[in-house]
Amino acid sequence: MSVTPAYNKLNMFSKEVYQQRRQRLCELLPDSFLLFVGNAEEPFNYAGNTYSFRQDSTFLYLFGIDSPNYTATIDTATGNVTIYADDVTLDDTIWTGELPSVAVVASLVGVATTKPSSALAEDVKCVMKYRRVHYVPASRASSVQKIASILGLQTAAVNEYVSEPLIKSLVSMRSVKEQCEIDELENYMHVGYDMHVSAMKMAREGNSEQVIRSVIDYMSLRNGGHVSFPTICTVHGEILHNSPTTQVLKNGDLLLVDAGSESPLHYATDNTRTTPVGGHFSQQQREIYNIVLNANNAVAAAVRPGVFYRDMHLLAMRTIVDGLSQLGIMKGNIDDAVANGAYALFCPHGVGHMLGLDVHDMEGYGENYVGYDEEVQRSTQFGFSALRMARRLQAGFIVTDEPGIYFIPALIDKWQAEGICKDFINYEKLHTYRNFGGIRLEDDLLITPNGGRVLGQRIPINPNEVESIVCNANK
Amino acid sequence: MSVTPAYNKLNMFSKEVYQQRRQRLCELLPDSFLLFVGNAEEPFNYAGNTYSFRQDSTFLYLFGIDSPNYTATIDTATGNVTIYADDVTLDDTIWTGELPSVAVVASLVGVATTKPSSALAEDVKCVMKYRRVHYVPASRASSVQKIASILGLQTAAVNEYVSEPLIKSLVSMRSVKEQCEIDELENYMHVGYDMHVSAMKMAREGNSEQVIRSVIDYMSLRNGGHVSFPTICTVHGEILHNSPTTQVLKNGDLLLVDAGSESPLHYATDNTRTTPVGGHFSQQQREIYNIVLNANNAVAAAVRPGVFYRDMHLLAMRTIVDGLSQLGIMKGNIDDAVANGAYALFCPHGVGHMLGLDVHDMEGYGENYVGYDEEVQRSTQFGFSALRMARRLQAGFIVTDEPGIYFIPALIDKWQAEGICKDFINYEKLHTYRNFGGIRLEDDLLITPNGGRVLGQRIPINPNEVESIVCNANK
Repeated sequence: MSVTPAYNKLNMFSKEVYQQRRQRLCELLPDSFLLFVGNAEEPFNYAGNTYSFRQDSTFLYLFGIDSPNYTATIDTATGNVTIYADDVTLDDTIWTGELPSVAVVASLVGVATTKPSSALAEDVKCVMKYRRVHYVPASRASSVQKIASILGLQTAAVNEYVSEPLIKSLVSMRSVKEQCEIDELENYMHVGYDMHVSAMKMAREGNSEQVIRSVIDYMSLRNGGHVSFPTICTVHGEILHNSPTTQVLKNGDLLLVDAGSESPLHYATDNTRTTPVGGHFSQQQREIYNIVLNANNAVAAAVRPGVFYRDMHLLAMRTIVDGLSQLGIMKGNIDDAVANGAYALFCPHGVGHMLGLDVHDMEGYGENYVGYDEEVQRSTQFGFSALRMARRLQAGFIVTDEPGIYFIPALIDKWQAEGICKDFINYEKLHTYRNFGGIRLEDDLLITPNGGRVLGQRIPINPNEVESIVCNANK
Repeated sequence: MSVTPAYNKLNMFSKEVYQQRRQRLCELLPDSFLLFVGNAEEPFNYAGNTYSFRQDSTFLYLFGIDSPNYTATIDTATGNVTIYADDVTLDDTIWTGELPSVAVVASLVGVATTKPSSALAEDVKCVMKYRRVHYVPASRASSVQKIASILGLQTAAVNEYVSEPLIKSLVSMRSVKEQCEIDELENYMHVGYDMHVSAMKMAREGNSEQVIRSVIDYMSLRNGGHVSFPTICTVHGEILHNSPTTQVLKNGDLLLVDAGSESPLHYATDNTRTTPVGGHFSQQQREIYNIVLNANNAVAAAVRPGVFYRDMHLLAMRTIVDGLSQLGIMKGNIDDAVANGAYALFCPHGVGHMLGLDVHDMEGYGENYVGYDEEVQRSTQFGFSALRMARRLQAGFIVTDEPGIYFIPALIDKWQAEGICKDFINYEKLHTYRNFGGIRLEDDLLITPNGGRVLGQRIPINPNEVESIVCNANK
């Protein structure tokens, strides 16, 4: 009987991909000793009942091994790479089936040297006598504890001693996607497409957010992928990270779905669509929708290598200010309104972020390393300050393009009470939109040598097309 | 516009339920100071992208609050209960919507005193000068770190200083389910029913384990519940904790599904069924299936208050030895075979475990506190030693009844090579079953004053009925 591995899912790129990445890292960081801690299983409610395993993204990038309790070191002075992990015992195999040995798994990603986990602390201790150990920040408490234990640090000190040179090297590498990464994500975009079109078809009176969300997540899981982030599926799009509830949709609502799936190699899709429940936008909804769509399209048409993504944010926000001014919700000089951040009342988030092995790619390293550099610093202005990605685009970047317009009662009341941007906002007119909700439209853009393009088949976004999908599904 | 809370899901029992539980704890542990650390959000790949939130089960039991970053203390000398948590800021509400205040949430579970999280460490420090702080073990590294930080301990020491009196008090309380808990789970058992019947209907050639698993998990999620443990959906039932793969089913396979869902208040369902792919058991399969079914039924008929669950394990195993002897796979005296643990070659796990807020209820406290006591100690015999629940049953216990028969090639080879139980096992005959796979049948039993019964409507288990479900779905 053939035995199926329980994990050690052997989805990975060819070994040369990982060898070349590690080789490049050796060139960027010569004479350095690097430590990489893979993830452990995380308890759901007790140690034996765990969440779905997710490997650390840095570990996936450099070693491709999708199994818990792996650690690795690279000595860039010698090029020596060692993987530390433990083979399962016969007793374990009753529960897990036969698994490939650590040596076999390591060989698949081009690593010849493996040792048991117990050898790690001693090996690192020897190095620490005369060299720094470089490592990246750990998000999970379990990884922080592991690093603390290996290095003999207090847990609170672990993320103080992270290596900025290592972070910067990895950001420079992971920002520019290789062809195999682009192919991996592009070939998987159809899953995100299906998730969103399925949701559109369910945008009818009587369905609950929770039921639609369960179908969205199902479409992800049946393709083998965990959702790339908790699915947002809400008729309250103005609550930016709202969780699905048992609330039942009614005609006239706007259903905002922000959802994505992880490909077999853990690249994230991330799209947002907003659909009129029942299949017909009201005039007011269509007008706002088209402003958001124009902002999305403007960015998609303007991206190219060398352009600051900060300027794409401002382009989208200018489009929003322009549109809202035509509706009489905003007023005054458009450039001044943008410069003063008046748009942030309607769009308090940035226009997009990097996308890759993480849905906010590399965010665990620190947002500013990923989206900012010596050329562009983060604004302190409300809204603009939330922009995750601001620096110059390069061919091979993948970014999200996700403008939105929201009517957030608590924020409107605060701004009006404090007189914020009162020269640019027609608060009287605005109150007729108070119960509007929110609209966001998000595509994933690959930056190409001469411009940019939507990855995969674009999910229906033209308002007439969206309406007909809803209507045809409910005939 | 009504605002829907992002979390702070306000699913809870009436406040009296929690008040009475805390009151009972005060009686069991007089003059004690108790600390309860609720769970935090756990990073999926970075801090801002988290797994689905799951509250700590002890916290749910005593406080019912299903939101992250809550902590509580009880001074059983005075009856004072304090909840520590932080209200969201206006900035937060842009992302999460308006949430009920900590004071409102606490009042819903009968707690009048709330303080900001920042007050906790100082309050506990004052107590520690003259009293012990009692707490239960923490499974999550994030909770271990939190306890370490509050108490000024090294993380490695946290689980050394847990309170045995507190553990024992909570086990005594949580073991006997209250009527509201029984109702909560019983009213939710239909979700598990639907998950399993959906899987049976898909047990046909060409469907993959992964696709069937995605439907099972979908049935859970559409009812609002996270799966209560990672779904097992495999044609290799002999690999006890096998994860679903892209493997495609073929006629003649046995599809073993072990799956459950968490009710709105986080009580776990847990059932196993084994279905013939294509809808027809072979003679060999039907014979083994009926032995497992007989073992399951024997336990269900024999449970009642006062009986040791250890003896139910032995009853099930005796039924298995009897059946396998009739097939010529086992031989010799049945009682001797049971006493020598010969059955463990075929069933290396125990017949069941406690069920409640955790699928292995209270396992985080330590298995032996839950399933063993001064009357019954854990066996060291292979197989028998894996039994989680051995002690005397009481009315109000909920236990699983899950015998199985597996043909595990690696284990067969090991036992035969070492001559283990060779007087009880006909290894020659056994080899004709080498590629059989495995069968497990699991129900959830409520112990009643006079016996026991299956919780909820029993999922189809009669082999003819199972066959007809598969066949009717594929007409």
